[in-house]
Amino acid sequence: MLGNPMYIPTFDDMLEAHARIEPYINRTPVRTSAYLNELTGAELFFKCENFQEPGAFKVRGATNAVFGLSDEKAKLGVATHSSGNHASCLSYAASRRGIPCNVVMPTTAPQAKKDTVRRYGGQITECEPSTTSREATFAEVQARTGGDFVHPYNDPRVIAGQGTCAREFMEQTDGLDIVMAPIGGGGMISGTCLTLSHLAPEAQIIAAEPEQADDAYRSFKAGYIIADDAPKTIADGLLVPLKDLTWHFVSNHVTDIITASEEEIIDAMKLTWKHLRVVMEASSSVPLATILKNKDRFAGKRVGIIITGGNVDLDKLPWTL
Amino acid sequence: MLGNPMYIPTFDDMLEAHARIEPYINRTPVRTSAYLNELTGAELFFKCENFQEPGAFKVRGATNAVFGLSDEKAKLGVATHSSGNHASCLSYAASRRGIPCNVVMPTTAPQAKKDTVRRYGGQITECEPSTTSREATFAEVQARTGGDFVHPYNDPRVIAGQGTCAREFMEQTDGLDIVMAPIGGGGMISGTCLTLSHLAPEAQIIAAEPEQADDAYRSFKAGYIIADDAPKTIADGLLVPLKDLTWHFVSNHVTDIITASEEEIIDAMKLTWKHLRVVMEASSSVPLATILKNKDRFAGKRVGIIITGGNVDLDKLPWTL
Repeated sequence: MLGNPMYIPTFDDMLEAHARIEPYINRTPVRTSAYLNELTGAELFFKCENFQEPGAFKVRGATNAVFGLSDEKAKLGVATHSSGNHASCLSYAASRRGIPCNVVMPTTAPQAKKDTVRRYGGQITECEPSTTSREATFAEVQARTGGDFVHPYNDPRVIAGQGTCAREFMEQTDGLDIVMAPIGGGGMISGTCLTLSHLAPEAQIIAAEPEQADDAYRSFKAGYIIADDAPKTIADGLLVPLKDLTWHFVSNHVTDIITASEEEIIDAMKLTWKHLRVVMEASSSVPLATILKNKDRFAGKRVGIIITGGNVDLDKLPWTL
Repeated sequence: MLGNPMYIPTFDDMLEAHARIEPYINRTPVRTSAYLNELTGAELFFKCENFQEPGAFKVRGATNAVFGLSDEKAKLGVATHSSGNHASCLSYAASRRGIPCNVVMPTTAPQAKKDTVRRYGGQITECEPSTTSREATFAEVQARTGGDFVHPYNDPRVIAGQGTCAREFMEQTDGLDIVMAPIGGGGMISGTCLTLSHLAPEAQIIAAEPEQADDAYRSFKAGYIIADDAPKTIADGLLVPLKDLTWHFVSNHVTDIITASEEEIIDAMKLTWKHLRVVMEASSSVPLATILKNKDRFAGKRVGIIITGGNVDLDKLPWTL
């Protein structure tokens, strides 16, 4: 079932994914900050997926896809396109199984993310920073290598894997009123929907998105997928559009999508570095940015925020540019 | 007993401290990085004391001192001098008990640390950045307020409190061959000695110090305390000299003291931010810096490193200056 790209993954698929990936991933800790609670009026819990070995939650879905392959299929390796973290995480998962990994990355991807892919033995082919160019370049790479295509988010194996994060989060916090994550293609949000619609159907699921790449927000309001070809935002993990599988979960289970400006995202990023003392990407700061501008909505609530990644070019921090 | 400044704290004092402070401190997580293990050839465990609410291990000793005061003594509050984190942590502990806190800080203390003290309600009096000026200014402040003097490290209550960190660390890791921490005045190292000399007497305790503030190293080699008046290093938490109580532990229980240059410290700091994805101070990077230049000594060993603090001026990162 999971081999069919249109298959909608189930709660049991998530449980199976969790059992499969547990030996290879970290059960990441949850951080809190009395200062940030005071500042927002909410009770915030931060799930540190930036503390996965390759620095992002995407290692969950990637590991589920890689270790779910038959031995025969695994020999040809895996292939993908990604603006960064999925590429690193798929390379990492492939290296753990000892199989090849080919990735197509935009020329604009941060150097830190390219370095990580190469460190895990991933082969990079560069493309222009647009969805069109990425998909064309990928078709060529995949035809050449024959590797199993692991889409960064529109893949049932990937969504089932990402759903394992929300399961841990609920166990670690004894329940949450709201769970938030940034939204790009919607992989983490879809996995969160998959898990919480069974484990905690009363919990709100709120996605956070940069104003300058608000295609998911506009899709959510319109009722159908709207895709931009080349949005620009400091939150470089959130440049890709929703696809059919993630749209299924977003349209059926997400409570709301809220946006924040570039300046608000950078302020929230710096605030988290300073008070949580964790290194996280601009993309991961979007949820806190949206909470800070909508305090009434979150006041008194137990709010879980998934810190999606921590691969940052330390020489190009947004507040020092 | 603990009220006598010359009293040498015992293992039971540490256990009592742990029971006293547990409601107010975090049992901080331990982080590992396959990448840093590969780079060093050792198995590294990082105890994230930067994840204490006020951002440093010093909240342990400060909380033990504050909550150990009689109600009568507590009314007058506490007072101290500190180059930074002890000031924040004592202010934090005092605010948790609702008592006043007066601190003398050098004019050169990082703005981030001053901000933190003020956020917790601490009253700052500034002095010149030398031991002489600090002690003179403090005498005046203490005479004026009558607050209980909680020395940043040469205080049995403080050392017993810091010792609780090593206890957690050994439980969380199922044992370590070597435990490392940076050394300034020697409070954390002394607490570590206190605890490990009972819990794991075979474990090595190695202190790490900046070459440019290597008074503990020279004291250790000479066999008596050598104090510099105004050393200069990027590791601004390590500017103070050993005192009699900490010298007792350092001279009796520390296996060795190793030093690192400013450049090595900055490189290790950036490496940890990048691969552990935690925000930590330059002071906290000294142990990893010394491991990287002495790999043979640590190869194959289970090495615990205490990340002592994470209060950093994000606008003045050493590698962007």
